[in-house]
Amino acid sequence: MRPDVFGGRAKCLQRLIRLKMPVPVTVALGFDAVRAIARGQMPDMAAIVFPFGDAPLLSVRPSSLDPDWGGPGAILNIGMCDALHQKLTATAGEAAATALYLRFIQTYAIQVARLNPDAFDFDGRSGLDTLGIALATFEAEMDEPFPQDPAVQLSEVLRSMARTWEGTSARLLRQAKGAPSDAGLGLVVQAMALGVGAGDSGAGVIQFVDSQTGAPRITGRYLGQSQGREAMVADGALFLTRDPRGPALEQQNPEIFAQLQAFGQIARKRLREEMQIEFTISNGALHIIDAVRVPRTVQAAVRIAVDLAQSDVIPRAEAVHRIDVQAVTALLHRQVDPTAPRDLIMRGIAASPGAAHGKLVLTAEEAQAAAMRGEAAILVRRETTPEDIRGMHAAAGVLTQRGGVTSHAAVVGRGLGVPCVVGATGLVIDRRGARVIAPDGRVIHVGEVITVDGSTGEVLAGEANLREAPLDDAFRTLLSWADASRDIGIRANADTPRDAQIARDFAAEGIGLCRTEHMFFEGERIGMMREMIFAATSGERREVLDRLLPMQRQDFVRLFEIMHGLPVCIRLFDPPLHEFLPSDRAGMRDLADGLSLPLADVIARVEALTEYNPMLGLRGVRLGITVPEIYEMQARAIFEATVAVVRGGLSVTPEIMLPLVSARREVQTVRSQIDAIASAVRAQSGVEFTYRLGVMVETPRAALRASDIAQDVAFLSFGTNDLTQMTYGLSRDDAGRFMPAYLADHVFPADPFHTLDIEGVGELLQIGAARAKQGHPSVTLSVCGEHGGNAEAIAFFRAQGFDYVSCSPFRVPVARLAAAQLAIRERYDFPSASGKYL
Amino acid sequence: MRPDVFGGRAKCLQRLIRLKMPVPVTVALGFDAVRAIARGQMPDMAAIVFPFGDAPLLSVRPSSLDPDWGGPGAILNIGMCDALHQKLTATAGEAAATALYLRFIQTYAIQVARLNPDAFDFDGRSGLDTLGIALATFEAEMDEPFPQDPAVQLSEVLRSMARTWEGTSARLLRQAKGAPSDAGLGLVVQAMALGVGAGDSGAGVIQFVDSQTGAPRITGRYLGQSQGREAMVADGALFLTRDPRGPALEQQNPEIFAQLQAFGQIARKRLREEMQIEFTISNGALHIIDAVRVPRTVQAAVRIAVDLAQSDVIPRAEAVHRIDVQAVTALLHRQVDPTAPRDLIMRGIAASPGAAHGKLVLTAEEAQAAAMRGEAAILVRRETTPEDIRGMHAAAGVLTQRGGVTSHAAVVGRGLGVPCVVGATGLVIDRRGARVIAPDGRVIHVGEVITVDGSTGEVLAGEANLREAPLDDAFRTLLSWADASRDIGIRANADTPRDAQIARDFAAEGIGLCRTEHMFFEGERIGMMREMIFAATSGERREVLDRLLPMQRQDFVRLFEIMHGLPVCIRLFDPPLHEFLPSDRAGMRDLADGLSLPLADVIARVEALTEYNPMLGLRGVRLGITVPEIYEMQARAIFEATVAVVRGGLSVTPEIMLPLVSARREVQTVRSQIDAIASAVRAQSGVEFTYRLGVMVETPRAALRASDIAQDVAFLSFGTNDLTQMTYGLSRDDAGRFMPAYLADHVFPADPFHTLDIEGVGELLQIGAARAKQGHPSVTLSVCGEHGGNAEAIAFFRAQGFDYVSCSPFRVPVARLAAAQLAIRERYDFPSASGKYL
Repeated sequence: MRPDVFGGRAKCLQRLIRLKMPVPVTVALGFDAVRAIARGQMPDMAAIVFPFGDAPLLSVRPSSLDPDWGGPGAILNIGMCDALHQKLTATAGEAAATALYLRFIQTYAIQVARLNPDAFDFDGRSGLDTLGIALATFEAEMDEPFPQDPAVQLSEVLRSMARTWEGTSARLLRQAKGAPSDAGLGLVVQAMALGVGAGDSGAGVIQFVDSQTGAPRITGRYLGQSQGREAMVADGALFLTRDPRGPALEQQNPEIFAQLQAFGQIARKRLREEMQIEFTISNGALHIIDAVRVPRTVQAAVRIAVDLAQSDVIPRAEAVHRIDVQAVTALLHRQVDPTAPRDLIMRGIAASPGAAHGKLVLTAEEAQAAAMRGEAAILVRRETTPEDIRGMHAAAGVLTQRGGVTSHAAVVGRGLGVPCVVGATGLVIDRRGARVIAPDGRVIHVGEVITVDGSTGEVLAGEANLREAPLDDAFRTLLSWADASRDIGIRANADTPRDAQIARDFAAEGIGLCRTEHMFFEGERIGMMREMIFAATSGERREVLDRLLPMQRQDFVRLFEIMHGLPVCIRLFDPPLHEFLPSDRAGMRDLADGLSLPLADVIARVEALTEYNPMLGLRGVRLGITVPEIYEMQARAIFEATVAVVRGGLSVTPEIMLPLVSARREVQTVRSQIDAIASAVRAQSGVEFTYRLGVMVETPRAALRASDIAQDVAFLSFGTNDLTQMTYGLSRDDAGRFMPAYLADHVFPADPFHTLDIEGVGELLQIGAARAKQGHPSVTLSVCGEHGGNAEAIAFFRAQGFDYVSCSPFRVPVARLAAAQLAIRERYDFPSASGKYL
Repeated sequence: MRPDVFGGRAKCLQRLIRLKMPVPVTVALGFDAVRAIARGQMPDMAAIVFPFGDAPLLSVRPSSLDPDWGGPGAILNIGMCDALHQKLTATAGEAAATALYLRFIQTYAIQVARLNPDAFDFDGRSGLDTLGIALATFEAEMDEPFPQDPAVQLSEVLRSMARTWEGTSARLLRQAKGAPSDAGLGLVVQAMALGVGAGDSGAGVIQFVDSQTGAPRITGRYLGQSQGREAMVADGALFLTRDPRGPALEQQNPEIFAQLQAFGQIARKRLREEMQIEFTISNGALHIIDAVRVPRTVQAAVRIAVDLAQSDVIPRAEAVHRIDVQAVTALLHRQVDPTAPRDLIMRGIAASPGAAHGKLVLTAEEAQAAAMRGEAAILVRRETTPEDIRGMHAAAGVLTQRGGVTSHAAVVGRGLGVPCVVGATGLVIDRRGARVIAPDGRVIHVGEVITVDGSTGEVLAGEANLREAPLDDAFRTLLSWADASRDIGIRANADTPRDAQIARDFAAEGIGLCRTEHMFFEGERIGMMREMIFAATSGERREVLDRLLPMQRQDFVRLFEIMHGLPVCIRLFDPPLHEFLPSDRAGMRDLADGLSLPLADVIARVEALTEYNPMLGLRGVRLGITVPEIYEMQARAIFEATVAVVRGGLSVTPEIMLPLVSARREVQTVRSQIDAIASAVRAQSGVEFTYRLGVMVETPRAALRASDIAQDVAFLSFGTNDLTQMTYGLSRDDAGRFMPAYLADHVFPADPFHTLDIEGVGELLQIGAARAKQGHPSVTLSVCGEHGGNAEAIAFFRAQGFDYVSCSPFRVPVARLAAAQLAIRERYDFPSASGKYL
């Protein structure tokens, strides 16, 4: 029975029947049959009811391909009529019989006859009087008595369910959830095992693992004299296993309980999944009514998959395959407890996942001060600049008024693993008043606690309940299995020892991008940088840089030690020099004091370095060539650190990457300079070492000329952020001003800084990769932009023959999993394993 | 005789001999023979001297492929010795014979024997005593007497000239001038027709056109009893034709003069060129010694080529082919008289050709005020912004401290035809002191006159002598012939009626790029724009734009009227909105007053609109989609102007171009909006009209997706400026900071904003053009960036099948000529016609 002809529920029931479970007689109507019914062509009812023989009551349940698509609700107790009421009164008692009949009349009147629900709301009343009112009301509304012929009842139910499915509102609803326009509905007609009546009768639900954790634990409820899933919500329902809170089925009916356990084992092994089973006990006999996949959190999904593989129910690769990569991302960050109340202040753009709360601060300095006091702080800025990085590092979360998902705050936030919400455009920051004003006029003062949720973009008042990120044993096991299947490397973008340690912990295979800018910003270093910028001669510049050299060398030594044995790819200095200068008058005055220069000179220098379009200006390799002393110092620091680490007995092969290259000659110019320094350090130290030189491909021109450029380097690493900016002519820092409107109007299908633009940027990547291999067949190809950790992007890079992707350390586990799934899906044809049905 | 075997002079002499001109006996040594001589392998001297029989004296002249490559000087009077001195004393007199001998000894000693020139400087003394000293000095220095055997003299001369050519300094010198490393030297040995001696003897030079203007006019000089070209510099030389300033050869020797005229006619017709002829009269007989192309200015070159074609000496296409496109550019702008003295203050980057002088002003307002007083002004700014445009328009020239060849000042300057020097980085602008300070400390106050030369980048003190741009009849004739051959269209970039009129005068075939920004800046309009920016609702924006509408409509009416019958391609609004807001506090205060808003609101709005990278921000079609009221107003203004012009009986098909497109959906979004307005205007006016919609391809993505995008448009116009910026990741406004260093170090072979980067940007153009044709075979392809008028770039666009190029109106003539030459060179194999030789 194919699920795409009869739907998922029918398919699953068939499998239960084949496993010889006591499933009541079941007839499935396929999609085509239901479509015919909707058009008024009823099937041969006699043929349908024939298998049921003299079964007193039937149920009809929907069976679409994906239950999330919605559809008509199940209808039970079809066949109830005056005669059966009388009969059941004898066997099950008047109260039970009347309740059954009354409930059926209600359901039928509202769902099938489409009568006004209010008219059939008896407000909990029951009994024969109420039943009489119900029958009379039906007859009054319909001008005919309540149908007494079970065949008529059934055909009306089928017609009604088929038409509901084809109705416009149901159609729009399911298409909004991704259903195709021709999505079909199957119907499952089943003889009802009555949970009411003589002897032990009742209904319940059982599962064998915990939905939250995935750990083995029997959960569920059972309620005597009930139908369907009532037990799950009813007071007084039994627990299943012995429980201090109340009586349990295990005690009351150990035999039935043992049968259920046995069926659970069979289902787990043969359906290769943890199932939630709906059962009925009818006059002492157990019936299995339905079974669905145990609903589960991501954490539970991982545990269940790992347990199934460890008990040899599924292969390890299938366990890896089953985990939803998107959902797993949530595992890696703290989140706002979805069950706790939330006091929403406003929404911005979710820019760096995870949630955090802390006292509101408005400057990087305050954030650092709070961190020193051991207090969590949420740093709120109009936008962040490199000068804010230490404050961002110190903050528990960041909120900015401006910017998009790839603004400075967002990129740094993701890099640091700091939750971040950006583009909160309605927020007013009143620095003088030491407060912010929300769009609804609410005022929050500095020092008051707020919560930012970088996974949803929400900003909440007060300290919301958070849940910890559980990177548990099961997940680690799963990732190790993923690595066994994976065929593209995963490195991390890591600038600091802290990042490097996270990368190593998350089993990144090296550092794919170590930005060195922060090594010029921290502490007293920025002062030296400013001195260098104001130096009049190359000699003076060199003198200042010589003082920075030992600090950078030490930075590299620590990185190399943490990453020993793994490659570390260091990008040489990239930003424009003006980022190191103060932008406000007070800062310039301080600088003038510090350098003993006239303020006018400082202002003039700052103005002279200001650029119209810093992204497209004097930075990267252009600065490396124009002010060669910087790269010379960095190369020396890297090589001397290499020597130090090698002397310490560790192995290291540094990789040096040149940013913003657009022509081969740029590479050659810097290469000869760096080679000379390597030779000098080798000669001075007497230690032999090698290094690999590479280029960061960020300009369209570098991609187009990759065949040339590759001939001078060992690796090319594609920086998709900048490449996207230049391919679109779109600054990621300025995109926020119109991107929301563009996405809302579907001008762009997605934010290209978030979802790799395969059609445009992707073609340049493809061209660049192919040409690089042409020019230098053994060249290493990688990607180190924001897209590196994204599952669809990884699929693309893998298809283009890239050697590795590099992403934020926090995304390394997701990337490992996503990459493994790609390889697995290419090798095996495992069934898709999401949704409610098997 | 092939010039690449024997050199140009030998080739030309051979042609003169074939024309039966009285050329003395001549023997040519080819490149290989001279190379052998340099290696010490002398040829059979008897064979060389044999043809000369008993000729008393010989000359040897160099004959390389291009005389500009330098090489050894000519050596005359070879064969002078004691015996001949005696003999000549008898025939020509003692003084003449001694002078000849003395001069030969000097030449031989210095050029051949490489003796110290000072030892042979006789300071104008002559006579037998001096001759004796010369011979004795030679003998003392060389330890042997001056060679008396003519064969020895000749072989030494040949050896010396051959070795000089192969020497390192000569080699480096000529390679710097573009000579190939294996450039050869030929030598021409000629019997001398003695211009000294008995009877009518002397030497002279004659040409039949004016070197400055190219007009027919015999010029030259003749000096009796002289050799070589002495007549050209000697006092007392004869004029050739009757001249009030002195006696003329025409009077003194009408027969010889008539012969010269006849030879001139023959040379012109048979050599198909205006030649300058060197002649000697030897004892009453005329000898033709040498002939070279008449040296000429560009203006003269045009006149000569046109005259040759009009007298059917050469075809018109060859006349077009002969003109050097680069040189012609100079014709179109005023220039500093190269012969006048110049007082150089400093050098900047030549950004908009032409020279101008005027009083120094430091603000756009002062420039406008000066213009109203009828005074020429040179506007000096740190850099220019759109607010300066009216001032630039009013100024005679512009000088900026910052920026490169494609900075705002440079682009606007070229567009306006205003001479402009940018990147004068050493200049200090002291606004408070109303003065500027040059790098050498010189102070120039506001109101003092300076001269800027936008062709050379020079800034001169005072009012330098300027020469007018002569777009004369000959040039117009040549261009009309060029158009007959041309097979790619030439349009002009023109924003204003003034530009349009120049474009029309220069026979542009339409406007290829009409930027509309200025229509929002002029006069009171910028105030309205600011009102619009501060408008709170779409309705308010529309209300303000409705007031701008009639003004823009009138702008378009004037353009359409001037260009009637020709296409006008209008680019919709492109710049970011913040360009319309004041950037300084005073301007913001004024604006706050004008809008009756709190200053804080104005500051907040300005800050909110500020962008990190305006080039990559909210502008172009992004603004058109985000603030749709602007494009709606513009489309309405264009269509209503069309209706008005059509009603006036003129024909017009407006073309509307969308800037900064990166995705097809952007085009579709705006297209439906504009279509609706066209329908509305048609319905309201009852006038039928059509329009063509197109896209400006400026982002790499638009080029990559051209197949898609082309399907929705009638034309694609490639904006090479922005495409270059984005392909390189390089802002043209910021490139000036390192481009000079990059060019000096050959990191980039050329400034890509100046010379189209065929390898990188060119490939995107190629991809874009090919895909556009694939997606929409009849789509029109054009280019409207700064490169449009550049000859090499035109060759590239023509090869890629572009329909037209659009360039600054002032470059239209050059572009017409360059494009014609490309077509001609593809069809005919005319000889190259530059250099001194034929």
